[in-house]
Amino acid sequence: MNFLNEVADQFPLAISLAAGRPTDRFYERLNPGVLLDKQARHEHSLTPGRNLLDAKARLLQYGRTAGMINELVIQQLRADEGVTASSERILITAGCQEALSLCLPALCPDPQDVVLVFNPTYAGATGAARATGVAVFAIPNVYLDVVEGIEQAVKELHQSGRRARALYIIPEFDNPTGRVLDESQRRAILGICARLRITVLEDNPYGMFRYEGQPVQPMAALDEAGCVIYLSTFSKTIAPAVRVGAATLPETLFGDRGASRALRHQLVERKSYLTVNTSQITQAIVGGLLLGQNGSLRQWIQPAAAWYRANRDAMLNELQAAFTPISSQMQWNRPSGGFFLALDLPFRFDVEAVVECATNYGVIVMPMSFFALDNSQDHRIRLSFSAVDAQQIRAGVTSLAEYVSWRMERDLHVLKNTHKGGAS
Amino acid sequence: MNFLNEVADQFPLAISLAAGRPTDRFYERLNPGVLLDKQARHEHSLTPGRNLLDAKARLLQYGRTAGMINELVIQQLRADEGVTASSERILITAGCQEALSLCLPALCPDPQDVVLVFNPTYAGATGAARATGVAVFAIPNVYLDVVEGIEQAVKELHQSGRRARALYIIPEFDNPTGRVLDESQRRAILGICARLRITVLEDNPYGMFRYEGQPVQPMAALDEAGCVIYLSTFSKTIAPAVRVGAATLPETLFGDRGASRALRHQLVERKSYLTVNTSQITQAIVGGLLLGQNGSLRQWIQPAAAWYRANRDAMLNELQAAFTPISSQMQWNRPSGGFFLALDLPFRFDVEAVVECATNYGVIVMPMSFFALDNSQDHRIRLSFSAVDAQQIRAGVTSLAEYVSWRMERDLHVLKNTHKGGAS
Repeated sequence: MNFLNEVADQFPLAISLAAGRPTDRFYERLNPGVLLDKQARHEHSLTPGRNLLDAKARLLQYGRTAGMINELVIQQLRADEGVTASSERILITAGCQEALSLCLPALCPDPQDVVLVFNPTYAGATGAARATGVAVFAIPNVYLDVVEGIEQAVKELHQSGRRARALYIIPEFDNPTGRVLDESQRRAILGICARLRITVLEDNPYGMFRYEGQPVQPMAALDEAGCVIYLSTFSKTIAPAVRVGAATLPETLFGDRGASRALRHQLVERKSYLTVNTSQITQAIVGGLLLGQNGSLRQWIQPAAAWYRANRDAMLNELQAAFTPISSQMQWNRPSGGFFLALDLPFRFDVEAVVECATNYGVIVMPMSFFALDNSQDHRIRLSFSAVDAQQIRAGVTSLAEYVSWRMERDLHVLKNTHKGGAS
Repeated sequence: MNFLNEVADQFPLAISLAAGRPTDRFYERLNPGVLLDKQARHEHSLTPGRNLLDAKARLLQYGRTAGMINELVIQQLRADEGVTASSERILITAGCQEALSLCLPALCPDPQDVVLVFNPTYAGATGAARATGVAVFAIPNVYLDVVEGIEQAVKELHQSGRRARALYIIPEFDNPTGRVLDESQRRAILGICARLRITVLEDNPYGMFRYEGQPVQPMAALDEAGCVIYLSTFSKTIAPAVRVGAATLPETLFGDRGASRALRHQLVERKSYLTVNTSQITQAIVGGLLLGQNGSLRQWIQPAAAWYRANRDAMLNELQAAFTPISSQMQWNRPSGGFFLALDLPFRFDVEAVVECATNYGVIVMPMSFFALDNSQDHRIRLSFSAVDAQQIRAGVTSLAEYVSWRMERDLHVLKNTHKGGAS
């Protein structure tokens, strides 16, 4: 992550198809002062004995470690994502990243405990595991059947005395690939995880941004065995600077209600030692907005979602126009939502290529290897269409195609020379 | 911590001399909307090419992991605390608690590495160590000379194959005891820590709240060997809900400039995986306030400091009035600043006593054993005078004295009966 920020700083005029942040062009609508006031009035209405000034002052204090706006978030999760939560099962966190760094060590307390991930996967998840001392194991890519992959991983781990305790997954509009798992895949994963007692950490930052096709229920909504912890965030729907996310635990953990409660208690305690509590100021901004939107963000995100959809279409068109003439080896997916797509290249795209491409072609892209645990992703890049406009997408993709042509010619040239060298 | 919140929830009418939070009676002066706007204008003035709306939108985005308002915080640390920082040495954190949970595992990476603490100490420090898998060792209390205590601790650890790598300390108006280390004690600790290569984590949340006597320089300002990481927070000077703190690293780590840089790099990376970055909204509130106060919070905190001083005086007077008649076994200190004092009791004050005292006498106090790593603090309590008013202090201390009288009589009665029983 820091490497890409440095590249962006070094080439401020380059177009970034690497940044996965949301667009900030609709943030004018957010008025923190007004939203804080709204939340203060709401808190005041819940404890009518106190006066309003007290309620406002209290927002600026320390607060409950588990969160302040829990009921409003529960309402939003139900309305917008079809996930049922309750106050004893939810924990408000300093962004979803904190939820990850709380859950991983709690689910994998022993040195032989392992979290399974897909490959590639969100680098923040493997980073959180590393930062909290949890071992990561990539589900083998060779198995097209994801269930078979999980089974194989568990078997391999077992042979080396280790144990899969958690599975990190973004089933909807995956970061970095844009992939969606369909309902039968989700149910199959839930089945094997329930059978093997693997807790699923379902991360759903992009679920609200679907541009076509029928919605698929989150795994947390399909979960009957009690194996899904649902991770959510307001970074994409409201704004990243609120740093507000949530972890929702299942009613029972594999049928055990006490185990779920004990896990939440442990997460709350751990949070109290990492960040004390999530800022009540930023919680109030989220709360105030949810109050004004009657508990659903569907309407609120509409302009951004329309923008992203148009950007996705623009990127798909530009890719088609720019890459079809070059080579049939170039492939990309058509994501039905989210911020990202994956592009396959006929050569290795590494850190050197990032700098080369930014320096000579004025476009910054993300090597897929940044998200990988092996070298299987070395020939892919992630393209993001969330924080750019159509003009930047056109210019960026065109420049990228130019770089790709140049690279292919150079590589061919090197190859020819090598052959000549070999023949002499 | 959670236990006390539960007690407070259970007895909402009880007076709390346990809560160590700052007073919120001057928070009306804080206007988040105005402060955000001020910070946005400042950011805009630094990058004049962009328009102001962009600068405002950018505040709501993700931001640099190391922080956004670093220069303003550096200015404030120099002006108010006499601590010299620089942009390559400071890291803005989600409250000081996050700084602790970043530094501890970075300083103590190996299983045999240990952080030394005084006993009693801030429970959040030992909790952060526990949450991040770092072993804690209490400096033996029997040694009045703190240097001798540290030497003894290091020797004991060495004998069991462990190594002291860090020392956590609140030299100014300690939580929970209110104690201040004088300059010669600070210099002596710095000397031994430099010699033994123990990094000092100097936590200074209360340093701005001195009510009498000459200021003592922070250990970071006295540090010549490069062994102090200075931890600071805006929770007490501005408001806890900003959740903004900072860690300032020494220019060199024991003379090694590269080692200090490498450590900061590691802290920044770790932070990116725990919380991504500190909310730019709450950073902007801090930044906007610092801009309006010309970089110093001295004036801003004046009303709160005067309030705390008056509360301290009231508490000392009430203790004198209520406890002198009861017994000479009751002793307490006169803190020259901060939020707390320590009261010695002639009996054990445990969780049961907290509930008893809250139920029957309407006052909640903090057993010092909550901050202790052994049973040496079982007969002490911490009294806080920060979040109450003079009337509550009078009523609270009077009720506490009544509880103490009742306890002493009961204990005497039990003792008599035991003796009778023994004689029969």
